[in-house]
Amino acid sequence: MPSRATVSRPEPTPSILPALELIAAENAAVILRLLADAEATLDSAAARLLAARSVFVFGVGRSGLALKMTAMRLMHLGLRVHVVGETTAPAIGPGDVLLVASGSGSTGAIVRAAEAAAAAGAGIVAITTDLGSPLGGLAKVTVVVPAARKQDHDGQVSAQYSGGLFEQSVVVIGDAIFHGLWKASGASAEELWPRHANLE
Amino acid sequence: MPSRATVSRPEPTPSILPALELIAAENAAVILRLLADAEATLDSAAARLLAARSVFVFGVGRSGLALKMTAMRLMHLGLRVHVVGETTAPAIGPGDVLLVASGSGSTGAIVRAAEAAAAAGAGIVAITTDLGSPLGGLAKVTVVVPAARKQDHDGQVSAQYSGGLFEQSVVVIGDAIFHGLWKASGASAEELWPRHANLE
Amino acid sequence: MPSRATVSRPEPTPSILPALELIAAENAAVILRLLADAEATLDSAAARLLAARSVFVFGVGRSGLALKMTAMRLMHLGLRVHVVGETTAPAIGPGDVLLVASGSGSTGAIVRAAEAAAAAGAGIVAITTDLGSPLGGLAKVTVVVPAARKQDHDGQVSAQYSGGLFEQSVVVIGDAIFHGLWKASGASAEELWPRHANLE
Amino acid sequence: MPSRATVSRPEPTPSILPALELIAAENAAVILRLLADAEATLDSAAARLLAARSVFVFGVGRSGLALKMTAMRLMHLGLRVHVVGETTAPAIGPGDVLLVASGSGSTGAIVRAAEAAAAAGAGIVAITTDLGSPLGGLAKVTVVVPAARKQDHDGQVSAQYSGGLFEQSVVVIGDAIFHGLWKASGASAEELWPRHANLE
Repeated sequence: MPSRATVSRPEPTPSILPALELIAAENAAVILRLLADAEATLDSAAARLLAARSVFVFGVGRSGLALKMTAMRLMHLGLRVHVVGETTAPAIGPGDVLLVASGSGSTGAIVRAAEAAAAAGAGIVAITTDLGSPLGGLAKVTVVVPAARKQDHDGQVSAQYSGGLFEQSVVVIGDAIFHGLWKASGASAEELWPRHANLE
Repeated sequence: MPSRATVSRPEPTPSILPALELIAAENAAVILRLLADAEATLDSAAARLLAARSVFVFGVGRSGLALKMTAMRLMHLGLRVHVVGETTAPAIGPGDVLLVASGSGSTGAIVRAAEAAAAAGAGIVAITTDLGSPLGGLAKVTVVVPAARKQDHDGQVSAQYSGGLFEQSVVVIGDAIFHGLWKASGASAEELWPRHANLE
Repeated sequence: MPSRATVSRPEPTPSILPALELIAAENAAVILRLLADAEATLDSAAARLLAARSVFVFGVGRSGLALKMTAMRLMHLGLRVHVVGETTAPAIGPGDVLLVASGSGSTGAIVRAAEAAAAAGAGIVAITTDLGSPLGGLAKVTVVVPAARKQDHDGQVSAQYSGGLFEQSVVVIGDAIFHGLWKASGASAEELWPRHANLE
Repeated sequence: MPSRATVSRPEPTPSILPALELIAAENAAVILRLLADAEATLDSAAARLLAARSVFVFGVGRSGLALKMTAMRLMHLGLRVHVVGETTAPAIGPGDVLLVASGSGSTGAIVRAAEAAAAAGAGIVAITTDLGSPLGGLAKVTVVVPAARKQDHDGQVSAQYSGGLFEQSVVVIGDAIFHGLWKASGASAEELWPRHANLE
């Protein structure tokens, strides 16, 4: 691990607006591609989550955090949802759906979980950059995100670090799936609100 | 708590593309406003995080998950970072910075943490929709996000549910701060990569 | 915060067996006192957890980790269980039970959660050293542990650091409640096993 | 997954004292065996943790929660500690120590992490029931706990469910290592106290 002391302390002040513009432009481009290509997979992913007995979500690192944001919203919608690795997540089984996100589609822990879920009779919904990846092969529905993978360091797909653009896309896709399901449900915001955690 | 059984199971299939367009448009509008208004506060927030002895992040719910995404990237950059509530987070003290996010700026647990951090000699950097909120009053730097708060259910600011737009903005702002700091550091992606967790 | 450099690096090697003997003796003494005094409260606590619509657990620091160990076992037993602060914990309400642990019985975050839970119609089961504490006042059932509180630094009740003995007791009490409920249920180990998380 | 409805609701009230006695007796027996057999390994484990550049802890399920209790105490002692899987845990490397616990010593995720840690130049300290297990083979120091493994359902070693006795032992061993290191350090409780998290 490089020493923490190697971070340079630049004069002058870091400049954040160009970074914000870059991120906005990259996200807009991904969303345009999804609008053009992903209607069927997004609708199918949403329908499978809605029909699941229980939804389980699993990702590692920042993709996992993005999926937890999605999981919380699906709980607000009234679905039964678990995060793999949290204390009270039970066994997955037939009728359940495992929602996973992996930029490469080949993250070891996620592929193993997807294999175990499939063996237990659950369906897999995957978000990944690579339809031909192991996760793409295991999933019933694969939402393909046209973004860089973690070690695409050459900046041809994204000038952001590592899987940043992919992880931002997972947040947006999760929230779009939630929003579409919410609107289709006919429930008002006031009907969802009482499900929010009330002890913190 | 409403019964889980009240979620309607709509025919036909939910439609996700309109939701994706809505989210994209709302995010673009927020970013345009930040580009117009927030240069000084974003640069100042970044500079304070960089200069901190240790950075602590704290949010509840989805804002907290968004800040964890930021925390992970600041660790990749070589900063010393802790998430309040995780097992090994120590005491905060002089020279440290607490980064918080709260749509309303008045979430009880966050205001209490900010007060305790200020009393311990740490500086506060806040992301909120309300500069005049308690958090705005406590913070050295307040990034103001022009987005709805959790209980703005009338949809005048955002048609998304609850604080969705705010939480998406926290993800983007955190990643913009990281990207700006990274570029200012002069480090290559390959120099950051060895800091990524290597045991999962 | 004291510098990390202040930890002395002793010659010779640290000696762990005396510490193990001390912990064993202190735990044995606590359990003898519970066996003498706590039959009614332990049985009542177990009965309330079993009868709850959903069980929520909440503690901070090491007590919170001990309660998560209990929560996992109650899930294995087939109860509906949530950990306050985890992603998918919903709102608490009438018919639910909040299980809390606090050595002093006056930890701010826990007292606030217990007040909110009581206001929402849930019952409180508390594990604490102090029956006369705010938590003792809020709880339907209070299991009183004859152990030191976090800042009882004089070593009269326990020679262990801070709330160590209390936190060990929470682990043991949680496991005893589980074991008693399991035996009363008549289920075999093989019947519980399929509920264990199967994706990690 | 068995239906939640299969939990019987027994008349009369569950009886917890016999469970408490059983757990106390089983723990006492394990500790007697450790006192007789484990002096060298416990002292060596403690010395390695103290000498580590950073300590990483990793376990799954209840063993993992027990190790988080240990990790928090090692942080209070002034060591640099990370929990694998928490947001800000960096890469492990030479000079670091990975502390793991697995009843069987063959839990897939833990063995993979230990292999990766060893390949990165870190030392492994393992707590397990089986010295001849894959973890025992990877570890520099193995503390052997004479307790049942998770699927020893026949009750010959422990009448408790699954790895309960092992997990209780991990809590006690972690606290004994902490206590021994603390006493060897010569620091007072008041010197450790300021390191406790002060924002929750």
